[in-house]
Amino acid sequence: MSLDGFIAGPNGRPGNPLGDGGLAIHQWVFPLASFRELMGMAGGDINRDDEIVRAVFARAGAYVMGRRMFEEGEVGWPSNPPFRAPVFVLTHHRREPWAREGGTTFFFVTDGIDAALEGAREAAGGKDVRISGGANTVQQFLRAGVVDELTIHLAPVLLGTGVKAFDDLGPQHAALERLGVIDSPRVTHLSYRVTRKS
Amino acid sequence: MSLDGFIAGPNGRPGNPLGDGGLAIHQWVFPLASFRELMGMAGGDINRDDEIVRAVFARAGAYVMGRRMFEEGEVGWPSNPPFRAPVFVLTHHRREPWAREGGTTFFFVTDGIDAALEGAREAAGGKDVRISGGANTVQQFLRAGVVDELTIHLAPVLLGTGVKAFDDLGPQHAALERLGVIDSPRVTHLSYRVTRKS
Repeated sequence: MSLDGFIAGPNGRPGNPLGDGGLAIHQWVFPLASFRELMGMAGGDINRDDEIVRAVFARAGAYVMGRRMFEEGEVGWPSNPPFRAPVFVLTHHRREPWAREGGTTFFFVTDGIDAALEGAREAAGGKDVRISGGANTVQQFLRAGVVDELTIHLAPVLLGTGVKAFDDLGPQHAALERLGVIDSPRVTHLSYRVTRKS
Repeated sequence: MSLDGFIAGPNGRPGNPLGDGGLAIHQWVFPLASFRELMGMAGGDINRDDEIVRAVFARAGAYVMGRRMFEEGEVGWPSNPPFRAPVFVLTHHRREPWAREGGTTFFFVTDGIDAALEGAREAAGGKDVRISGGANTVQQFLRAGVVDELTIHLAPVLLGTGVKAFDDLGPQHAALERLGVIDSPRVTHLSYRVTRKS
């Protein structure tokens, strides 16, 4: 997220998944060894940011994402996508599960966020369910009061326009308890427990 | 600022300067010895948050604020207001300078932000000019490209609605360089240098 609350620039679409200017928010992640490895590439930086990205992916036993994030990602992910776990995609279009290399299978859920969460919980095998995004999907789960933790990677940029991470969730939405703040020159990693939901 | 980007709740006005629910964003500051001292009260917590608040005020040789912040604050500040320095208030209403106890004099500037900044720079005697707020005033100075540093105190709360710190500044607004991240259980202090302005 940029300091002014954006997770992507405007005009996001397949082929431009970060939106115009959105690279400035996410560029810290691309050189990391963990990210490169997840994308099927060798090499990369090994540092604290790298450890954190590795840990974030390692905790998740299943993922939930919105249709647009899936469609924007689909064209860029390698044949072995970075999830290595079941991914539940919220959509209105029925589609058979799509098994990819490396353990990632996309399941398409047409009956709402509760069903997606239930499927992901069962599939996660005791590990975390991670709501990958996009922003609209995260906001739906926050509004439903089912989010236990928030992980934010705060990038040092004022993007000025684009897709808001939180938008207006509604009055007095949630108290948080800070779990950890880890700082690096390129990004600040913030994690919180949600202590009062919706 | 709340994690979702608000600096006050909705319905802010004199008597309700933080807006509905806005206390959740600012409550970390009230128990601090430095804040209590600035408000003319004895006692209070002495900790890292306290040191930071003390340092933020100590750096400033003059302040600029918007009319609404002045009007909301005026009813709550003691006869010795917390600034102890010249304060330049942006307004459309001419008014004679108002000298208070302890070194705070409010100057009312009717010819725009450039004039306010020029007056504050001269008055600051080589120290910093601090743009106190509110959000709209900070945004005007950010858009004008004259902000050198940003200091954000990030509170662990999703407020859900209210007054946005940054709002939409415009595309590709500014790159930042992280100066420091200092964490405490109640708030995360973030400071940035603005490296590419407007």
